[in-house]
Amino acid sequence: MFKINENYLKLPGSYLFSDIAKKVKAFTDANPDNKIIRLGIGDVTLPLAPAVIEALHKATDEMAVKENFKGYAPDLGYEFLRSAIALHDFKARGVDIAIDEIFISDGAKSDSGNIGDIFDVNNKIAVCDPVYPVYVDTNAMSGRTGEYQPDLGKWSNVIYMPCTIENNFAPQLPEETPDIIYLCFPNNPTGSTINKAELQKWVDYANKVGAVIIYDAAYEAYISEADVPHSIYECDGAKTCAIELRSFSKNAGFTGTRLGFTVIPKELKCGEVMVNSLWARRQGTKFNGAPYIIQVAGTAVYSEEGKKQTKEQIAYYMNNAKVIKDGLLDAGYSVSGGVNAPYIWLKTPDKMTSWEFFDYLLNEANVVGTPGSGFGPSGEGYFRLTAFGTYENTLEAIERIKKLGSVTT
Amino acid sequence: MFKINENYLKLPGSYLFSDIAKKVKAFTDANPDNKIIRLGIGDVTLPLAPAVIEALHKATDEMAVKENFKGYAPDLGYEFLRSAIALHDFKARGVDIAIDEIFISDGAKSDSGNIGDIFDVNNKIAVCDPVYPVYVDTNAMSGRTGEYQPDLGKWSNVIYMPCTIENNFAPQLPEETPDIIYLCFPNNPTGSTINKAELQKWVDYANKVGAVIIYDAAYEAYISEADVPHSIYECDGAKTCAIELRSFSKNAGFTGTRLGFTVIPKELKCGEVMVNSLWARRQGTKFNGAPYIIQVAGTAVYSEEGKKQTKEQIAYYMNNAKVIKDGLLDAGYSVSGGVNAPYIWLKTPDKMTSWEFFDYLLNEANVVGTPGSGFGPSGEGYFRLTAFGTYENTLEAIERIKKLGSVTT
Repeated sequence: MFKINENYLKLPGSYLFSDIAKKVKAFTDANPDNKIIRLGIGDVTLPLAPAVIEALHKATDEMAVKENFKGYAPDLGYEFLRSAIALHDFKARGVDIAIDEIFISDGAKSDSGNIGDIFDVNNKIAVCDPVYPVYVDTNAMSGRTGEYQPDLGKWSNVIYMPCTIENNFAPQLPEETPDIIYLCFPNNPTGSTINKAELQKWVDYANKVGAVIIYDAAYEAYISEADVPHSIYECDGAKTCAIELRSFSKNAGFTGTRLGFTVIPKELKCGEVMVNSLWARRQGTKFNGAPYIIQVAGTAVYSEEGKKQTKEQIAYYMNNAKVIKDGLLDAGYSVSGGVNAPYIWLKTPDKMTSWEFFDYLLNEANVVGTPGSGFGPSGEGYFRLTAFGTYENTLEAIERIKKLGSVTT
Repeated sequence: MFKINENYLKLPGSYLFSDIAKKVKAFTDANPDNKIIRLGIGDVTLPLAPAVIEALHKATDEMAVKENFKGYAPDLGYEFLRSAIALHDFKARGVDIAIDEIFISDGAKSDSGNIGDIFDVNNKIAVCDPVYPVYVDTNAMSGRTGEYQPDLGKWSNVIYMPCTIENNFAPQLPEETPDIIYLCFPNNPTGSTINKAELQKWVDYANKVGAVIIYDAAYEAYISEADVPHSIYECDGAKTCAIELRSFSKNAGFTGTRLGFTVIPKELKCGEVMVNSLWARRQGTKFNGAPYIIQVAGTAVYSEEGKKQTKEQIAYYMNNAKVIKDGLLDAGYSVSGGVNAPYIWLKTPDKMTSWEFFDYLLNEANVVGTPGSGFGPSGEGYFRLTAFGTYENTLEAIERIKKLGSVTT
């Protein structure tokens, strides 16, 4: 008789964003005339940049002609894309990454979920709290997290590193030594960052204790401050301890177009074994590459026009972030994020729980956000708004929130 | 100190198609003027059908406009595509598959590799021998296959079901009871099929012993004979024991465009747990869907024009298959496949090993094929040619092989 992976049954039943969707549906069913403004899910709204559209059309035309048709892609991805990445994302920041250290994928969610395949089940992970749920859930699926403790909202075998207003949302080095450390900067959900000196401490720590850092840099394009690193490889010694995940979802609006990549330097080893080779084997065996036309489109993001156009998109979203942050500060909220990230993280007023504030905003302002507690126990009492809406909707949402009156936190 | 997944180190070092590539490169370096004809890798060569191209352009234009732009796709895939699949691939063959039993993916390779995630490590797998290497390799990566025995070319904890000329390349029910059975019909690499009554025996067996069948139907579009099932769900009771994998790679030339799907009926359960829910959780957590424009392109395959055009492509390849098969038979080879599949499987002449015949064909006819032994120990003494080349090259390759003289096998 076949046996299922019982670890799946340990996962808490409901998923944050489906809970939100249900509540919103119940509200709109009861109040069909109210205009809901959604600043919840981190999904982009601007259309693809003209340079990307042009590349998609061009690549599509190639696929229509026998001489230019492309079948299976190279295992790691097309060299034209990997070269553009090596040049623009790394060389331009003083970092040497070889093209065979770059693995093209269909996005950072797949990579952050699949990367666990190449590690033993007996590795203890450390995560920030709050955190993007995929890191913990995928480790739970692999049996790496122990048991779920519903009363604590935590897994028994995970090192949680609280990120709260008290430590300026920057995790401290953990007391217990982890084997795998997930870091995400600019952070989802808090929108916080750490500077290069602070990230260097993590790199030094990981090298000292023999941990690997899985560094999720999906939001690096939103960094506006000079001393915030875009890549962990800007830190000395990161190549011997860090894997970096990147995405086109947020820097070029590819959430529905799907493209990302993972960097694994050849210096990263466990004994004599290069982690790079393990991932090459994993991807070569279980994945057949991102579509040719999407890889061409991704390359267009690095063209002069593409860079200019996607920068404008990011400026548009970051203007929304400023509108949200300034408006909330005006209204007396305690707010962080929104400077180097498209997320605004606010403290709920009047000691409301995250879900109480969710209901309050939905009912009173018809605005949808994301309860901080959905990202982990230390997110309780916080709330996330995203800058990915339209400018008009963002403005209106903030006006509505301000009309609810000033708060004290 | 972090620990790697040691199962990866058990995998045999070299990969079939990279060994072939190295040998071909050495030959072309030494003989730069010889024209090599490649009938090795199962990659398509015809351009995408006009209906597919039109759909790609149209969907690209949608992504350029704010009102039509698409961000994150629904977890299971767009309903318009899942509805088209349910109607044309299943309903049209008398099979009721609900749209929430269909999971859109980036291809059958990903799905056949990732499906193992939802099963316990303690499941014994059974595979045909020879077999598409991904089934075994991905189970080896998960620690399900025991130890590799280089002298036998087998893993210690896998049930191998030989498919040779003696049993007409149809596997027999295994003596030892497996938990998970991989079946692929039309078969890669042998090109063989089994009829509905024979497949029904497998379904009945799986239901009896409580095994799950992972049924790879990636080549179903090549079936020409009436009594060969296109879907395992044409058999009674398959919904309680079978998962079916499908691909757009071979039926519509999407090897470089990437689209596939997996069907998991809700009736398939382990105790009270629906396997469908586990896969939904897996995909919802580790995958963000195939690109919108690719899902639109996949839907165009089911339009009247799309069906007509892709049928013509398949007819083109199957004409190549006939050229290969007839030519080899003329020359005295023992040949199977090529009737319901784009693969021709031949017995090597003069008791040559698979690799000896590979070298012989490369050196004497400058034709590249795939050694049967690369697919498993029972593939030794066999050789695979694919029908995916151009007609002109296929014709020339066969002429060259015939010029080598008649053989006896």
